[in-house]
Amino acid sequence: LFAALCSLNAQAQTRDPLPSWNDNHARARIIAFVDAVTEQGGKDYVPPAERIAVFDNDGTLWSEQPIYFQAQFIIDRVKALAPRHPEWKTTQPFKGILEGDMKSVVASGEKGLLELVMATHSGSTTDEFRQIVLDWLATARHPKYKRPYNELIYQPMLELLAYLRANGFKTYIVSGGGVEFMRAWVEKAYGIPPEQVIGSTIKTKYELRNGKPVIVRIPQLDFNDDKAGKPVAINQYIGRRPIAAFGNSDGDFQMLEWVTSGNGPRLGMIVHHDDGEREYAYDRKSFIGKLARGLDEAPQRGWSLISMKQDWKQIYPQDK
Amino acid sequence: LFAALCSLNAQAQTRDPLPSWNDNHARARIIAFVDAVTEQGGKDYVPPAERIAVFDNDGTLWSEQPIYFQAQFIIDRVKALAPRHPEWKTTQPFKGILEGDMKSVVASGEKGLLELVMATHSGSTTDEFRQIVLDWLATARHPKYKRPYNELIYQPMLELLAYLRANGFKTYIVSGGGVEFMRAWVEKAYGIPPEQVIGSTIKTKYELRNGKPVIVRIPQLDFNDDKAGKPVAINQYIGRRPIAAFGNSDGDFQMLEWVTSGNGPRLGMIVHHDDGEREYAYDRKSFIGKLARGLDEAPQRGWSLISMKQDWKQIYPQDK
Ligand SMILES: [Ca+2]
Ligand SMILES: [Ca+2]
Repeated sequence: LFAALCSLNAQAQTRDPLPSWNDNHARARIIAFVDAVTEQGGKDYVPPAERIAVFDNDGTLWSEQPIYFQAQFIIDRVKALAPRHPEWKTTQPFKGILEGDMKSVVASGEKGLLELVMATHSGSTTDEFRQIVLDWLATARHPKYKRPYNELIYQPMLELLAYLRANGFKTYIVSGGGVEFMRAWVEKAYGIPPEQVIGSTIKTKYELRNGKPVIVRIPQLDFNDDKAGKPVAINQYIGRRPIAAFGNSDGDFQMLEWVTSGNGPRLGMIVHHDDGEREYAYDRKSFIGKLARGLDEAPQRGWSLISMKQDWKQIYPQDK
Repeated sequence: LFAALCSLNAQAQTRDPLPSWNDNHARARIIAFVDAVTEQGGKDYVPPAERIAVFDNDGTLWSEQPIYFQAQFIIDRVKALAPRHPEWKTTQPFKGILEGDMKSVVASGEKGLLELVMATHSGSTTDEFRQIVLDWLATARHPKYKRPYNELIYQPMLELLAYLRANGFKTYIVSGGGVEFMRAWVEKAYGIPPEQVIGSTIKTKYELRNGKPVIVRIPQLDFNDDKAGKPVAINQYIGRRPIAAFGNSDGDFQMLEWVTSGNGPRLGMIVHHDDGEREYAYDRKSFIGKLARGLDEAPQRGWSLISMKQDWKQIYPQDK
């Protein structure tokens, strides 16, 4: 039995934990970091309880072009709800959505966007909203790939999540996306349980409906988990500083800064969208997922770029 | 080796997991519940990911009389900070605290209480505040027991926490107390990591001080984690409904209601302070930890009382 166990163990050790990663700097850096923090008695050893890794979601764990997938959810949801709201035909920003006139939607500004979020994300109970998201995922298709949005997750990042967890890490999502929008599907997609998903929130309230307690989503912004909000949310939800952070845009700058300025070994990495053929190529000038300051400061801050084009053999799980 | 493992396993099985609990109904109910949800193939089996148990803190995991320990922290903190605030000598509610005139403090109402919280809990960084709490715990002594407050934790509840964790549960605190006040010491006291501590919060902000990022506590209430706020916070932080809840007062009513009204096996228990000799005896008429509705409705709702007097052999870890 002992010999059998040892052989299994050796097998596990020799199996490549990151098969979709090319043998480049990014992969080497990840493995060196994990080796360092897990080496018993090593100078960079970190106890398991402190092995926290945080991941942005849009553009880091799944795609985000041509528009954030949650924005597409909003558009589809406005269309689905329109029959119940005849006034939307003549009121912006709803009119713009219904007529496919995105210019007027954008012109409605932050106030308009918030109206859209509230109209499509509140009013339901948390259980109902979860089902709405799952129903949408089951039918909506990405315009370029013609596949469900939750299949457009990055195979190399799935391997990275599993590799970190196999080495005692707790993996968290810290995203500007809505927390309940993500929780509906991320456990199945990434193996990340709901209690490790941090995102933007609207307020909720507890009430009894026909004697049964429910939690109702109310149309009021609670927290916008972006930029300097990310370290604030990390402190609020996790209560200790993670040792590794992965992002893709300047919305992750403060999260990367907060994580990598702690003492001891730290890992900060940025997924760089430079693969226009297999995915999308964008950074400094992109409206979605803009990455400029992060590109400029990554070298001096010790953050490594992950080149989708050069570092990843495969983008999506279904690719062969 | 196999035989050795089996013998270790048998040893673990026969060791009493709850040695400080008398062999009464409460203990039997806990063990029956854990056996049911962990029985592979049993009708009440619950997968480990869904084995979430939530615990109130004040009066459930540690004592709360003669005043909430965090209230004593506020009093001591006002006294410590008074030299820097000469105006407090003539301004309520600070004047009342400094003169030991609790009547005028109470008369200052909720607004006065909030002022006291903000004056003593904000302005520092999260790291500084943690140290302030630890320094206070190192010096402050409980008026009755003359012991540090963090020694006044309940030995039977420590055993219960460990027993649940040994059976695959994640144990959470869901308390009206301040989250950063608790996180400073609960990991060591209860084995509950910071990310499993949910409490009341004030707002924080991220900023750079001499180029170093810090998280600063600002004097604005964020969330009051009490009564109907408890299920709201559970949904916000955990994102799924726990299967077991432990409280001691009507502030836990909605949490118990939310947890025990889900489908499948559920456990709701209330620590009843009926031991005036070893601890304190109070319920319906108490200003702190009032328990009336919970006492009335526990039988019909299937919640079990834990009698400190009859069910617990020992109260605190240091007792013999
Ligand atoms: Ca992103
Ligand atoms: Ca309590």
